[in-house]
Amino acid sequence: MRLLVQKYGGTSVGTPERIRQVARRVVAARRAGQDVVVVVSAMADATDELLALAAAVTPDPERHPRELDMLLTSGERISMALTAMAIRDLGEAAVSLTGTQAAIITDEAHTGARIEEVRATRVREELAAGRIVIVAGFQGVSRAREVTTLGRGGSDTTAVALAVALGAERCDIYTDVTGVFTADPRRVPDAELIAEIGYEEMVELASAGAQVLHPRAVEIGARYGLPIRVRSALRPDDHPGTLITRRVRTMEQLALTGLAAKSGYARLVLRGLPATMAATARVLSAFAAAGVSVDMAGHADVPAGHRQLQLTVREADLERAEDVAAKLLEALAGATVEVKTGLTRVTLVGSGMNGVPGVFARAFEALIAAGVEVYALSTSASSFSLLVPADAEDRTLQALHAAFAPARERA
Amino acid sequence: MRLLVQKYGGTSVGTPERIRQVARRVVAARRAGQDVVVVVSAMADATDELLALAAAVTPDPERHPRELDMLLTSGERISMALTAMAIRDLGEAAVSLTGTQAAIITDEAHTGARIEEVRATRVREELAAGRIVIVAGFQGVSRAREVTTLGRGGSDTTAVALAVALGAERCDIYTDVTGVFTADPRRVPDAELIAEIGYEEMVELASAGAQVLHPRAVEIGARYGLPIRVRSALRPDDHPGTLITRRVRTMEQLALTGLAAKSGYARLVLRGLPATMAATARVLSAFAAAGVSVDMAGHADVPAGHRQLQLTVREADLERAEDVAAKLLEALAGATVEVKTGLTRVTLVGSGMNGVPGVFARAFEALIAAGVEVYALSTSASSFSLLVPADAEDRTLQALHAAFAPARERA
Repeated sequence: MRLLVQKYGGTSVGTPERIRQVARRVVAARRAGQDVVVVVSAMADATDELLALAAAVTPDPERHPRELDMLLTSGERISMALTAMAIRDLGEAAVSLTGTQAAIITDEAHTGARIEEVRATRVREELAAGRIVIVAGFQGVSRAREVTTLGRGGSDTTAVALAVALGAERCDIYTDVTGVFTADPRRVPDAELIAEIGYEEMVELASAGAQVLHPRAVEIGARYGLPIRVRSALRPDDHPGTLITRRVRTMEQLALTGLAAKSGYARLVLRGLPATMAATARVLSAFAAAGVSVDMAGHADVPAGHRQLQLTVREADLERAEDVAAKLLEALAGATVEVKTGLTRVTLVGSGMNGVPGVFARAFEALIAAGVEVYALSTSASSFSLLVPADAEDRTLQALHAAFAPARERA
Repeated sequence: MRLLVQKYGGTSVGTPERIRQVARRVVAARRAGQDVVVVVSAMADATDELLALAAAVTPDPERHPRELDMLLTSGERISMALTAMAIRDLGEAAVSLTGTQAAIITDEAHTGARIEEVRATRVREELAAGRIVIVAGFQGVSRAREVTTLGRGGSDTTAVALAVALGAERCDIYTDVTGVFTADPRRVPDAELIAEIGYEEMVELASAGAQVLHPRAVEIGARYGLPIRVRSALRPDDHPGTLITRRVRTMEQLALTGLAAKSGYARLVLRGLPATMAATARVLSAFAAAGVSVDMAGHADVPAGHRQLQLTVREADLERAEDVAAKLLEALAGATVEVKTGLTRVTLVGSGMNGVPGVFARAFEALIAAGVEVYALSTSASSFSLLVPADAEDRTLQALHAAFAPARERA
């Protein structure tokens, strides 16, 4: 029998009525002649409520990562049991399994574990017995039989990993949007639904801030070639959603796939550094040693013999970054630092983006016309990112979308 | 090192502040040089909230016993993780274990499983590593690795079973009363705290309605001779509590241990039955076949050749009991049934109660003086029970307590 994995997020199972709605969809898929495995997140707000409870007991829940995992995993236990009940009420056999019971084997890193293996024996047995299987997302078990959680994007990751292990034909991620768009439709009215997208581009879009699906899950799909579909949990029949799959594009063809934005960046410009590799390495090592992740880096040797370094950091890391910069300046006479906060990184994703003549020019012309100042720039094989002021984010997205839409149509 | 098991009920871990209070008590016991295992219930109201959620999803949660167990076991997962965090905040190593991790092995009877075995290897390893171990009460795991719950009195049962398996010196049950009393102090102002009580009498008192401790837990203690102490969770230092232990009393000596009451009973009187063993057996079998448990049964052959049967049933079973009676009457011409509802069973517990001249007489004299009508009577080796109208419950308890208090003092 064909096997489908369906994943429902916290909003989709957020109320008793929505859980019954999910049950109806699952049963419909089952009656269409498929084996179905359902992965559920905790009910919306449940995780926040548990965290609030922990914060009322202990000044710093993060100091107790093992117990925090024990606490948080109660969330999916509740949603999966309720989902199984609702499915059984519709006359189908169903059974819910914890991360331990489904043998989602992870490393020992509490609150941010990575899946090492899925031993799907129990899930297969339940399917063979004619049951719909509901599996807790976000949670796993270590080889020492400790309960772990997977951190951000955990339930998406559970669903895709389970689909791979079971040899499912597809993993459907049900969410509160109708699919993946070329840009956030709330910001860019012309944004279009993407019917099909390659894994690499989806990873770029998701990493660049498209919230619809976690890049970890897409990376697993890419590694094993598992098709993933993003669909609306509320009205799936009206919307085909977005299919994420292996896709070969014409070489060298310019093709805009989509735009995404992520706010909360700051830029540091260090001036008057010695123009040597050793000095640059020393600066970057100092940031790394302080645990500050540098996102977009660039340098220029102006005036001659003096190097200027541009570093982009998350605003959450800014305090530590400024401490590092202050210590470096003490040691390097004459060097200065300039900090600009309140920046957003806008990323344009598309295969063959890099190396195509005219891409940068087209982007900059569009942004000059829109009056947007660009603070930094970086590129990868299939994307380029621009750092702009947060208050110019919508204008930037709209200008770039308009400038590159014809490229999309040619694709 | 000496080992102590402490059990805290839902009220004792009902708020973040109370959880921190429990943590302080646990840490104090640990610093007094003992290994400590803590068994916790779900936070007060948590179970009711989960049941309400289930009732909002499905018309009949009881139809899904496996999933109901999965749902409810999230309750202890929350309280035990929070308790472990609070203990760690006080500087002691602590680890929380689910029923599965602590290997509380049960049969397969979801929502009312019985403990078959406790494989305490993991708990012993954690203790040996210097940790305080917090174990989820009320839950276990079947040999098929299914999550089960133990039903009523589950957490008390977990605590005593674990104490036996670990060879603990004692199991302390922390609760919201200061110990076991000769009668409910809210009803009988003269009621006294019982400093020490035998297992059998405690089983009688608990079965008769004393809510302080579940008879299942006491029975396990009795079987293995494990001392159990019932103590106040709020002010344990002011109250020594009640020690439940093996106790040999002087033979034949009359000794009142305590009084307990349980409401919600009804009495059926069937009249005009044939005065034969076969007819009586047929009546009792019919009730048993309908799943109606008969609590106190008596018969009299009046008038000669006709038997009158008195049966006490729970009011919850009354509808089914009346159906059974109606069918029996159809088959037995001339027989009638009379039903009296709203009755309470009051039980007097004490070793050597039965067979001591004057016990019944003293009880009936006291109740006649108090104007209480007795609807039924039954006896066991160490108790006797009376069925009285619910509105006479307090008067009955007070009259019997006053009548038998001198016996207690002689004991």
